Amino acid sequence: MTRGQLVEQIKKKASFLCVGLDVDLEKIPAELHKEQDSIFMFCKRIIDATAPYAVAYKPNIAFFEAYGLAGWQALERTIDYLNSHYPEVFTIADAKRGDIGNTATRYAKAFFDQLQFDAITVAPYMGQDSVEPFLAFKNNHTILLALTSNAGASDFQFHSENDVALFEKVLKTAKTWQGAEERLMYVVGATKAAAIQAVRSIVPHAFLLVPGVGAQGGNLDAVAENGLHADCGLLVNSSRGIIYASQGSDFDLAAANAAQELQAQMQRWLQKKQII
Amino acid sequence: MTRGQLVEQIKKKASFLCVGLDVDLEKIPAELHKEQDSIFMFCKRIIDATAPYAVAYKPNIAFFEAYGLAGWQALERTIDYLNSHYPEVFTIADAKRGDIGNTATRYAKAFFDQLQFDAITVAPYMGQDSVEPFLAFKNNHTILLALTSNAGASDFQFHSENDVALFEKVLKTAKTWQGAEERLMYVVGATKAAAIQAVRSIVPHAFLLVPGVGAQGGNLDAVAENGLHADCGLLVNSSRGIIYASQGSDFDLAAANAAQELQAQMQRWLQKKQII
Repeated sequence: MTRGQLVEQIKKKASFLCVGLDVDLEKIPAELHKEQDSIFMFCKRIIDATAPYAVAYKPNIAFFEAYGLAGWQALERTIDYLNSHYPEVFTIADAKRGDIGNTATRYAKAFFDQLQFDAITVAPYMGQDSVEPFLAFKNNHTILLALTSNAGASDFQFHSENDVALFEKVLKTAKTWQGAEERLMYVVGATKAAAIQAVRSIVPHAFLLVPGVGAQGGNLDAVAENGLHADCGLLVNSSRGIIYASQGSDFDLAAANAAQELQAQMQRWLQKKQII
Repeated sequence: MTRGQLVEQIKKKASFLCVGLDVDLEKIPAELHKEQDSIFMFCKRIIDATAPYAVAYKPNIAFFEAYGLAGWQALERTIDYLNSHYPEVFTIADAKRGDIGNTATRYAKAFFDQLQFDAITVAPYMGQDSVEPFLAFKNNHTILLALTSNAGASDFQFHSENDVALFEKVLKTAKTWQGAEERLMYVVGATKAAAIQAVRSIVPHAFLLVPGVGAQGGNLDAVAENGLHADCGLLVNSSRGIIYASQGSDFDLAAANAAQELQAQMQRWLQKKQII
């Protein structure tokens, strides 16, 4: 999917919502445990219920890998279902991979060629040759960790040389890499809304994937105020706040309501900033 | 496996060799393509041939994931084979995972509970709460990226605050985390042999996993001279130099020879340093 197609869909749905699929078998309704592939069935019902309000889906790969082979099969079925039934949505493998060149190429093949995701999250620690193999895929997008939403973000991401914090150094360096202008996005945690201004001063035009709204305490208004640009430029993720809005048999309806509520807030912001 | 059991095995085999399993179907002998599970069959023959000389095996997870479900199955068979036939060897999932707490726990379950690896490689970018969930597994070891062997290592790992480079900050911070003293090891690239002295000044007693000997240009003598301590404290990895020593039908014999040659060098160093 191109950036243009993503922007078009954002305007059409009046939404920049990404739904995170962090599937925990202990939290899904009992009735689904009777299904042969309960992980996939849960994902399918969440997707069907929230698709009118979401422009992106982000399976969290750890939650699938934790179930071994059955989890990997459920991941394959989930991405196949998204690609066949909702080809207009942007699909993100939240994998946070990062390794040297020849290994990075393998991860890119796993998620772009085998599984047919549009995008993958990648960690920056190993530098340019660990990220460029992903950027070499011209129909895909790479989403680099810059400033994360967790408490541990403060351990290293603010390590500063000449007043340049590591997360700023990552942004300044990565934006110069081959293919970055067209296909590199960045993860910026919503719990650090003030920092979104700092991020925007370095990458004014890039798309930012913003986790941390909802369960992690991030504030959508602060993110939208500081992060939106003419092409929207934001994908705001909510996982637990949507997929576990109810743990009863009405879980899909509750997920749809939670997604719609966020979409309505997003629509107001898109209108306020005259993007739609 | 405990650290004591690992040290015992190192002394018994007079080796601190780790064999990296980066299985590329394009590089394995044609005869193996006739097998039903050629990835696993290649790993099995490499393991059987090199086990007298190696104390650890390190499947590179990307190379398995790149083959989708078949790759994941081959990974399961490979680790099961190691655990059932060579329970004394130390098994490392080279996965370089790193994510927030609840997700990190899932990755830990995937590799420690589901697949039964002894250890996993983990990236530090997201800080304490992304690593401690791995350290909470008391029978397993976590191997944190500190200084990597690739060119991109220089992009961020030397970013310095008050003359403390990021990789040094990672070591200084991580060694204080819960469980680190007993169960945290570090990745230090062999292409930076001089830096091993700097690493040893911060973590004098820890085990270091050292990739980059062989194909990546690292020098075993420089690593051993600066890195060995009374408990050995090193696992030196070679992947391509061993598993692709020959691409003909004698690949396992060639792998054994390459492994034996490294083991002989290691034995001389263990004797020189009076560890055995």
